[in-house]
Amino acid sequence: MNTELPDWRKAPGEVGSSISSVDTPALIIDLDAFEFNLTSVHDRVQTTGARVRSHAKAHKSVDIAKRQIAAGAIGVCCQKASEAQVFVEAGIHDVMISNEIFGKSKADRVAKLARYAKISICVDAVEQIDQIAAAAQSNQTSIAVLVELDVGQGRCGVKTPEEALRLARSVASYSPHLSLAGIQAYGGSAQHFRLAEQRRAAVTASIEKVKTTIALLQGDGLKVSTVAGGGTGTYELEASSGIYTEIQTGSYVLMDADYARNTLANDSPTLRHALFGLCTVISVSEKQAVLDGGLKAFATDSGHPTMVLPGWSVKSISDEHTVIVAEADVEPLQIGDKVRLIPGHCDPTVNLHNWLIAVRGQIIEETWPVSARGALF
Amino acid sequence: MNTELPDWRKAPGEVGSSISSVDTPALIIDLDAFEFNLTSVHDRVQTTGARVRSHAKAHKSVDIAKRQIAAGAIGVCCQKASEAQVFVEAGIHDVMISNEIFGKSKADRVAKLARYAKISICVDAVEQIDQIAAAAQSNQTSIAVLVELDVGQGRCGVKTPEEALRLARSVASYSPHLSLAGIQAYGGSAQHFRLAEQRRAAVTASIEKVKTTIALLQGDGLKVSTVAGGGTGTYELEASSGIYTEIQTGSYVLMDADYARNTLANDSPTLRHALFGLCTVISVSEKQAVLDGGLKAFATDSGHPTMVLPGWSVKSISDEHTVIVAEADVEPLQIGDKVRLIPGHCDPTVNLHNWLIAVRGQIIEETWPVSARGALF
Repeated sequence: MNTELPDWRKAPGEVGSSISSVDTPALIIDLDAFEFNLTSVHDRVQTTGARVRSHAKAHKSVDIAKRQIAAGAIGVCCQKASEAQVFVEAGIHDVMISNEIFGKSKADRVAKLARYAKISICVDAVEQIDQIAAAAQSNQTSIAVLVELDVGQGRCGVKTPEEALRLARSVASYSPHLSLAGIQAYGGSAQHFRLAEQRRAAVTASIEKVKTTIALLQGDGLKVSTVAGGGTGTYELEASSGIYTEIQTGSYVLMDADYARNTLANDSPTLRHALFGLCTVISVSEKQAVLDGGLKAFATDSGHPTMVLPGWSVKSISDEHTVIVAEADVEPLQIGDKVRLIPGHCDPTVNLHNWLIAVRGQIIEETWPVSARGALF
Repeated sequence: MNTELPDWRKAPGEVGSSISSVDTPALIIDLDAFEFNLTSVHDRVQTTGARVRSHAKAHKSVDIAKRQIAAGAIGVCCQKASEAQVFVEAGIHDVMISNEIFGKSKADRVAKLARYAKISICVDAVEQIDQIAAAAQSNQTSIAVLVELDVGQGRCGVKTPEEALRLARSVASYSPHLSLAGIQAYGGSAQHFRLAEQRRAAVTASIEKVKTTIALLQGDGLKVSTVAGGGTGTYELEASSGIYTEIQTGSYVLMDADYARNTLANDSPTLRHALFGLCTVISVSEKQAVLDGGLKAFATDSGHPTMVLPGWSVKSISDEHTVIVAEADVEPLQIGDKVRLIPGHCDPTVNLHNWLIAVRGQIIEETWPVSARGALF
């Protein structure tokens, strides 16, 4: 039925309008903070000689990826074949799938993408290698492969340098359809260790394991040109290691409440919150207000979103509502008031929205689709 | 760039194919279980004389809503103006927004929808009433209004019968653009009280508060034709109360791990798990396997998804991965194996996906778009 109603799939704000006109709940990007974060991290990494390969899983936005590349990133990381497709189709020329995938349709998608861009992917088993090689062969393309080394996350990745060698040989055996690029060594859990010295100890251990692995592969005549890893919690450590060549920071441009809980080393730049949820107060009662965004607007795996407005805190969150409460002596909120919240975890929060509203001060400067939202495959 | 690659936005499975061909991570609906749940709950409610108004926020699917109406539901509930638009545009003739909204564009959307379907909405403040009345007036439409009464959730809703009376009078003053339909009295937290007697006590208290409110409104000459509320945890109690006229069950057709933790009264039908996440094993190590779906495939606000395969349990979940571990003596999983998980909470999990794959046994019978995914406004 054509109802002639405004299309709700359109951006919830108009370029040039005030932030107060944004339909809620929506995600706001503060461009000043975003640009500060972008420049700060890229400068830090690039002065070491390492390169940034921004992780696009954090934002799923072609507009953000293009800004990251304009600021010196060599390309992007993705986690899924379909996610990679979004960025290749948008003209990004160098896309790494920093993850294992398995499935014929996925391998075929990756192999076909290699017709249009430089594609690399991670492996931790021969089954993946065999499948990707077959797809590359049948599509007559070539894919760069990184052997993933588990450096403490306990998730994917081979556990020992010897296993890495075995897989690296297997990759090399599929030349020219596969080429060995090097090693993926991402310490995911280390990103969120709260103390700078804990993060430093974890990365120091990772570097040792990577060095041993490189020596073993090189001793076998295999070339390791790329060592990839690092994230928003540890990027300076990998970048300055002299070992890591590509740094996979993702959250850094947006930031979230969880990363803000990390204590930084003295000389590290404090990244700014650039991502906010904007909600409207829809109901009030004594010392309490109810917002029009809940679990479908904020991911809560890393805790509740936090209120920006002083004196207010989040009491509870349900599918469509966040209940906030005021300290004593705080001015009550009124129905219709708009408030900002800092998401607990940026990646799965962005994935809940179709749009990012990029603002400069109080004015909407751009509206960015979350291009790869739902690209789960 | 046109890459001629398969469109990842299409359904991850083809009608008539085997479930084993589904691209993962994906959501599967077991149609036998779904139909059992649909029939069981509708039969229970309809024999009491109350009517089911299925909550579409749980599934956001036009295909499911149509099946619910075919099975006797008088219409659907939605939580948002844009969500209501999806169902009205799909031809559903009776849509209740069982929530407060605030914002001129939202009120205007609701008022315009009333040209095409019977639209009702909840209020708990004069600000909402004034705004909706203005929108209905300027669009020359009429909207039915329920005054929401807080029956223990502590979220939206007026706290006292006296406040309800004040708002009911305000609604009546805007005739013919607003009409007083009755009272919304949904006990959200009571749905998840684990013991049947806890839920019964909560609903008994709600019924008393509703009765007092009805008496007050009727004493003032106001007509209360609709009393709406109830959910998957308590639907039999409201339905058999003689007071509630519309039952707003949502999760019942899908079910989830959280609702399965409720202890049921002896004569209540045990609803079956109809919603599953299907994932592929992408990496294995000793007694552990890594799945290709994480926080972007499963909402975790009500706990981790749970494994269906005996001997396996979820150890951790991150953005794109779920790590599962085996008990001693359990056969290891292989890369490429597909496994099912029961989501912790169905509503926000469905909201993460673009498609529901409806299967009968091992064969894909239909593919249903999550039509209102992202309809946050």
